[in-house]
Amino acid sequence: MIIVGEKLNGMFSSVSKAIDERNPETIVKLATDQINAGAHILDVSVGPGRDDAIDAMKWMVRTIQDAVDTRLSIDSPSSEVIRAGISECKRTPLINSTTAEDAKLTELLSLAKEYSAEIVCLTIDEKGIPNSVEMRTELAMKILAFAMDIGVPVESIYIDPVVLPVSAAQNQLALACEALSAFKTLSSPPPKTIVGLSNVSSGAQEKKLLNRTLLAMMMGRGLDAAILDPLDVELMNTMKAAEVLLNKRLYAHSFLKA
Amino acid sequence: MIIVGEKLNGMFSSVSKAIDERNPETIVKLATDQINAGAHILDVSVGPGRDDAIDAMKWMVRTIQDAVDTRLSIDSPSSEVIRAGISECKRTPLINSTTAEDAKLTELLSLAKEYSAEIVCLTIDEKGIPNSVEMRTELAMKILAFAMDIGVPVESIYIDPVVLPVSAAQNQLALACEALSAFKTLSSPPPKTIVGLSNVSSGAQEKKLLNRTLLAMMMGRGLDAAILDPLDVELMNTMKAAEVLLNKRLYAHSFLKA
Repeated sequence: MIIVGEKLNGMFSSVSKAIDERNPETIVKLATDQINAGAHILDVSVGPGRDDAIDAMKWMVRTIQDAVDTRLSIDSPSSEVIRAGISECKRTPLINSTTAEDAKLTELLSLAKEYSAEIVCLTIDEKGIPNSVEMRTELAMKILAFAMDIGVPVESIYIDPVVLPVSAAQNQLALACEALSAFKTLSSPPPKTIVGLSNVSSGAQEKKLLNRTLLAMMMGRGLDAAILDPLDVELMNTMKAAEVLLNKRLYAHSFLKA
Repeated sequence: MIIVGEKLNGMFSSVSKAIDERNPETIVKLATDQINAGAHILDVSVGPGRDDAIDAMKWMVRTIQDAVDTRLSIDSPSSEVIRAGISECKRTPLINSTTAEDAKLTELLSLAKEYSAEIVCLTIDEKGIPNSVEMRTELAMKILAFAMDIGVPVESIYIDPVVLPVSAAQNQLALACEALSAFKTLSSPPPKTIVGLSNVSSGAQEKKLLNRTLLAMMMGRGLDAAILDPLDVELMNTMKAAEVLLNKRLYAHSFLKA
């Protein structure tokens, strides 16, 4: 399971403050804490509503890389901010993310090709988030076709079936689970799959329980990667247990300590 | 999710002692505790190595039914003990279980028909437990074909893909998960599915974590019922969260308290 740590995000006030002050301490601590907890990639977002987004992204990427050698996920709705971030990356970046809208998909896949980056592709298009497995799968096919045309290998594609908050769209999560299975039938090798896990519990009271339960459900459907909070110990224990159950982590009586 | 409480089992020393003494107190308390925790059906097993198994089963069934009005699952490797148990049942019994071996399947399905009982059918035959999804699915097809011949409706069949201990057969659990999806394609309406959940953690240190993680994974595959320990609060919370995520339990901020 590829763990993308979600904590370096300007949505969190401590991170936003550190960006304002260009103070590396909070940033470096969140980077090392997440790596020590098991993150393989660190998501980096400057957060919404920032006039200095390009400069802030460059500063964050440089600050993190001065301290640690981990891969980064460059997270922004703006392709300019993404370009600014990935141009500073020392290791293969993960672009987070593109939708499956024609223009955006073409632009971001071209950027991925230019930088030999990996890329998260959401099954969302001009019409919004599809409300069926079939329509999500159609968008996944579109993403793979565009990637082939542009010359991004399927190994670099992470398809995201879009996890919505259970409080807002309770009927969509079973469909997102099924879509994970469906995506795996689309190519050989199959595309990798990813979700932004914490979205499911936005606004909910039992956030951690919902997050870890959905993670187990989706891992049982072959989920390859998740953007999540690696500092949530119970969540990471669930991830380890699911890996053991799926024969992707060696079983030992003390597998949590290994 | 149909919860079959596993605690009324002579494998547990307190239950075995209560059976020896024909002392109803322990039995009735375990029955009411499991029902209060959310069990819909109570599994009843006199445990192994008992000369008085038939009499003990009759006593247990009568003792439980004198106290509570819940459905019972009559659990024994012996068809005589099962017959003794179900003949005492006031409500629709669940026969637990038959394998898919010709003679046993015919005998137990005939018993299910005679008593209008539901029945757990394991995908095990003369050759043992299959080590592929396809062979499990073939046995599930055999079970449904025998049931149709004998006249047991598909609605009364619970197919069990067989959960083995992760400590002994780590590569089998992903197959059991996939088999759950495959079974659902075999008939319309599809057969119900069930597992004996606690088997997965037999001999393991992190029993409860493994149990609840597997439950979430299998519920994501459409599992309908599980034989489990309803007194494990975290397990039941995981079950509730999975039902919420699968849109089978109404979401509320306080869904754990509802």
